[in-house]
Amino acid sequence: MAVSVTAALLIIGDEILTGRTKDKNIGYVAEYLTGIGIDLREVRVVPDVEEEIVAAVNALRSRYTYLFTTGGIGPTHDDITADCIAKAFGVGIGHDPRAVAMLRERYQPDELNEARMRMARIPDGADLIENPISKAPGFHIGNVYVMAGVPSIMQAMLDNIASGLQTGARMIIETIEAEGLPEGIYAEGLAQVAAAHPSVSIGSYPSFSTAGFRNQIVARGKDPAEVAAAKAAIQDLLGRLKGDQAPL
Amino acid sequence: MAVSVTAALLIIGDEILTGRTKDKNIGYVAEYLTGIGIDLREVRVVPDVEEEIVAAVNALRSRYTYLFTTGGIGPTHDDITADCIAKAFGVGIGHDPRAVAMLRERYQPDELNEARMRMARIPDGADLIENPISKAPGFHIGNVYVMAGVPSIMQAMLDNIASGLQTGARMIIETIEAEGLPEGIYAEGLAQVAAAHPSVSIGSYPSFSTAGFRNQIVARGKDPAEVAAAKAAIQDLLGRLKGDQAPL
Repeated sequence: MAVSVTAALLIIGDEILTGRTKDKNIGYVAEYLTGIGIDLREVRVVPDVEEEIVAAVNALRSRYTYLFTTGGIGPTHDDITADCIAKAFGVGIGHDPRAVAMLRERYQPDELNEARMRMARIPDGADLIENPISKAPGFHIGNVYVMAGVPSIMQAMLDNIASGLQTGARMIIETIEAEGLPEGIYAEGLAQVAAAHPSVSIGSYPSFSTAGFRNQIVARGKDPAEVAAAKAAIQDLLGRLKGDQAPL
Repeated sequence: MAVSVTAALLIIGDEILTGRTKDKNIGYVAEYLTGIGIDLREVRVVPDVEEEIVAAVNALRSRYTYLFTTGGIGPTHDDITADCIAKAFGVGIGHDPRAVAMLRERYQPDELNEARMRMARIPDGADLIENPISKAPGFHIGNVYVMAGVPSIMQAMLDNIASGLQTGARMIIETIEAEGLPEGIYAEGLAQVAAAHPSVSIGSYPSFSTAGFRNQIVARGKDPAEVAAAKAAIQDLLGRLKGDQAPL
């Protein structure tokens, strides 16, 4: 039985919920974690409201191997993530000397005002996540990894923490083009293939453009032989159905 | 006191959690609802797993005025949203004659096989949401609106239901460019502006490109006069700070 390492992602920020900022982190984190063998099982987006953040952190960190958060770690009053994490863990929070040292690499002493020092407020017991772009660090405490919301910084932070994460068997993902066959034609056969390969998760994904529908079938699993067998069964099914539809 | 109408969005689909499909619905729905006076308060993404979907539906429909869902209403075996909604509401599910009639507009009798008929399975007591693109309808039951995952279809469905939704006071959103001022310089003053205008939610949003940081301050609220006052106070703050930094 392949080891399963799971994760949730918590996106913190009113700007996503009003549509002002279009999220770019969910797709990136999803693909990144899948690629290193961590199964992203849930995503939540919550506003900059303390009780919402604390409740979501506690619900998600207890359910999954890891919880990753993005957003709310800057210097302004609406950046409340660090305080919420401290509250969720029931620990204190204060200026972390290691974080202050990182900020000093970027700011002159007279520039390091109280607002900027907010970015060095780290929950007690947390370790820092380096930020090569703007220095203000993220942190991790227990199984929770707290990252910036700005995509380029979040991505750099994820690179910095990835090597320290426990990973499981990598998901093998095979995409099979339905090449013009409609979902309604292959659905019954696909359900039979899915039932015959219970360790493989099989999905059918239509997309739509001015050129019409395009259907892709995706087989996902952790056992290479079983995914390959499911893929072959799907290709066989599609081949038979195309044969049925061939013009006489 | 302005009426507040709230909503949650539930995105259903493994394909988003593996990163295979990059979500395009969250940003669209967020902006759309904000524009018509509905406050999106939470988003969740869950996999194609019955107990996860049922739990999320019940958690979210009880907390907000509306719950919108996307995904999982096609003809294939992994399309389980309608069954999950029926289970969440504790009602039966079967072929809805109105939905069957819609499918007949698209499919010839010999094309309307069992798989396609799955798309006419609608929970008892639900009303249909028309789908002008591929006919298979969405539906709403209680305060839950079930839409397709394909963005163009989801958008058409949202247009079809919007006029029937209760809406509240529209959020007024003012964006003020910080024009080169770093967050750490205006953070303290901005916190004072935020404290002085408690009915206005004020956020500071950095973005980062090869050209460096760009900061935008956003003031959001439902009272036009209060948002305008907060905006003026922010502009005044930024003007003072820029004056401080003027070269001699």
